[in-house]
Amino acid sequence: MNYEHIFDQAIERLHAEGRYRVFIDILRNKGAYPNARCFAGHNGPKDITVWCSNDYLAMGQHPKVIAAMEEALNDVGAGSGGTRNIGGNTHYHVDLEAELADLHGKDGALLFTSGYVSNDATLSTLARILPGCVIFSDELNHASMIAGIRNAGCEKRVFRHNDLEHLEELLAAEDPAAPKLIAFESVYSMEGDVAPIHAICDLAEKYNALTYIDEVHAVGMYGPRGGGITDRDEAAHRIDIIEGTLGKAFGVMGGYIAADTRIIDVIRSYAPGFIFTTSLSPVLVAGVLASVRHLKASSVEREAQQANAAFLKQAFRSAGLPVMDSTTHIVPLMVGDPVKAKKISDILLAEYGVYVQPINYPTVPRGTERLRFTPGPAHTPAMMTELTSALTEIWQRMDLALAA
Amino acid sequence: MNYEHIFDQAIERLHAEGRYRVFIDILRNKGAYPNARCFAGHNGPKDITVWCSNDYLAMGQHPKVIAAMEEALNDVGAGSGGTRNIGGNTHYHVDLEAELADLHGKDGALLFTSGYVSNDATLSTLARILPGCVIFSDELNHASMIAGIRNAGCEKRVFRHNDLEHLEELLAAEDPAAPKLIAFESVYSMEGDVAPIHAICDLAEKYNALTYIDEVHAVGMYGPRGGGITDRDEAAHRIDIIEGTLGKAFGVMGGYIAADTRIIDVIRSYAPGFIFTTSLSPVLVAGVLASVRHLKASSVEREAQQANAAFLKQAFRSAGLPVMDSTTHIVPLMVGDPVKAKKISDILLAEYGVYVQPINYPTVPRGTERLRFTPGPAHTPAMMTELTSALTEIWQRMDLALAA
Repeated sequence: MNYEHIFDQAIERLHAEGRYRVFIDILRNKGAYPNARCFAGHNGPKDITVWCSNDYLAMGQHPKVIAAMEEALNDVGAGSGGTRNIGGNTHYHVDLEAELADLHGKDGALLFTSGYVSNDATLSTLARILPGCVIFSDELNHASMIAGIRNAGCEKRVFRHNDLEHLEELLAAEDPAAPKLIAFESVYSMEGDVAPIHAICDLAEKYNALTYIDEVHAVGMYGPRGGGITDRDEAAHRIDIIEGTLGKAFGVMGGYIAADTRIIDVIRSYAPGFIFTTSLSPVLVAGVLASVRHLKASSVEREAQQANAAFLKQAFRSAGLPVMDSTTHIVPLMVGDPVKAKKISDILLAEYGVYVQPINYPTVPRGTERLRFTPGPAHTPAMMTELTSALTEIWQRMDLALAA
Repeated sequence: MNYEHIFDQAIERLHAEGRYRVFIDILRNKGAYPNARCFAGHNGPKDITVWCSNDYLAMGQHPKVIAAMEEALNDVGAGSGGTRNIGGNTHYHVDLEAELADLHGKDGALLFTSGYVSNDATLSTLARILPGCVIFSDELNHASMIAGIRNAGCEKRVFRHNDLEHLEELLAAEDPAAPKLIAFESVYSMEGDVAPIHAICDLAEKYNALTYIDEVHAVGMYGPRGGGITDRDEAAHRIDIIEGTLGKAFGVMGGYIAADTRIIDVIRSYAPGFIFTTSLSPVLVAGVLASVRHLKASSVEREAQQANAAFLKQAFRSAGLPVMDSTTHIVPLMVGDPVKAKKISDILLAEYGVYVQPINYPTVPRGTERLRFTPGPAHTPAMMTELTSALTEIWQRMDLALAA
């Protein structure tokens, strides 16, 4: 048994497929978003423009967020010092859960250390509490939902992406008495498309299934108060469990679910991924509180983001670049090859100071490798025009197809 | 199918067993550790002394840690804005991984959002990379290791706690050619005892097994540089993967592994729980960097903690209280009943302003419910004497047995 050989082979497979990942070493410049400093491969830090951040609204640099974190840091210190049950339940946690419950019109909410953990812990625990449960999962669901469903050890039916007919076919095929859960996302982060939430809820009612929606790429950004697509579409009351993140549009870190108090109490009491882990730092929680409160009241950031996303999509389309159909703030460009996607990204960084990460397998299916741009409120028209020119030049240099 | 009924039953089971958990709502007072404010059930915040924090050395309030976090907050902002691969790899992350690798004498380290995620992601991924792998797991291993092993889907053999003969028996029974991994902890957090690391490594060498040690209740606190029990016992070089937390003695939040670069590269590239999650906030990472660097150079905190733990154990023993055999900084008092353990804890909080959480199933086996005290460098002899008197009074009031 030669362990080193097996590990070497595992890494070699990644190099052979052109998808070995190199992490770009950066520091963002607070107050100058989307600017950052890039460290590796240069003589000293180099100025870059970040085009792939999920701090979608730049709330991670918002003065209210920074001030709230600074205050908490000086009032209570760095960490929580324990699990939620053993010494790590701070007053900030209690307040934020109330704020998030209100955001989604639910009775309760529960914080986790990340969105990944929210999905994994909640889905796996729900299915264990409901013996014989069958989970119906959209084929493009995030890895954390897939992990939770697999870790539940229950039956799983995968329906084609946003395909209501297929979902109904699968629901109808099961025992009407069996517990059922439909798990899907509102905004699919690598495509930028949106689920037909009301139609899925209609099916859930018809077949008596619970509904679970992942809104991580929507909370803060859609709806009059930033409650996500369920807020925009007035569908939150039809969803049993809404899951969200504190690390993207809210700009900090962590995850949560919002649901009725009965479900919250079950997850709180039975999910190992919630029970046996140090709770979120109160500093983070204080920052999120400020961020959620701000975005409940202000739509300025959301509107600027949507305007810039529309501008960039139009600029790409006009230049003949292969921008994918997205109805959201996400602007993906299809490349379809991991080596080429990485090369475009490398040229952008080295020659244009543009940072956009290539997206490859397992984040997207093989053969659909892409570049994914996330323009925010602070990206200027000039930046977007320059980006479009740079991409057009690289597309020509690399003999890639441009639309007429 | 009545979902509400099933959820209600699940909660009712907890009430019936006397182990329904109520989170105590507190805020710690920075600069006045171990003091805190308790919110629920009083008219306004009430002053309490915290006896169950895992911020073991009060580093979460250390001026160097606070200053480093404040600087990062104002330099780069609140969150990282992405996964490690997509925009969330800051220079702080790179620096901290180098610092932690050095702490354990390894070539590499990898950060996770929590210790729970480190264990779950690393163990489940390792076993999937090594086809046919058998994991040998101490029966008292933490829930996060159990989750990782179960999620790996591989064969598991559970050996009796710290029982070398049983471990060898199980190792010898397997195919010598099969990949093997021995997973154990250094300090068991609810007992306070320590694993025979060198003897386990002897067995690992004899049977060609990889070794994985969880040092979350030891890093920062043992060894001349705070590298844990493997540092104190000069055993780090014999362990393949050392796992630790940033949320206990280091006072902040997060988890990590340290290992050779080959293993780090495999986990970094294949573990969904690492790949698909927003990276640790740079503010947290900056704080941990300061904390690790401080504890590498200073033993003052470690020595004060050990002296206070010895003092408290002796005070409990002299009073005839059922203190468990612990060879570490952890001071558990056996109660053996969930309702009584909760009642003692409630009286301590209400009448004495002492906060210690009752520890019940599933954190410890049923029938071994206990109170677990974690004296730190800032608990004074007067506080410990008062605590001992309070416990003695409650023990008598509740007709619990005291040793002669």
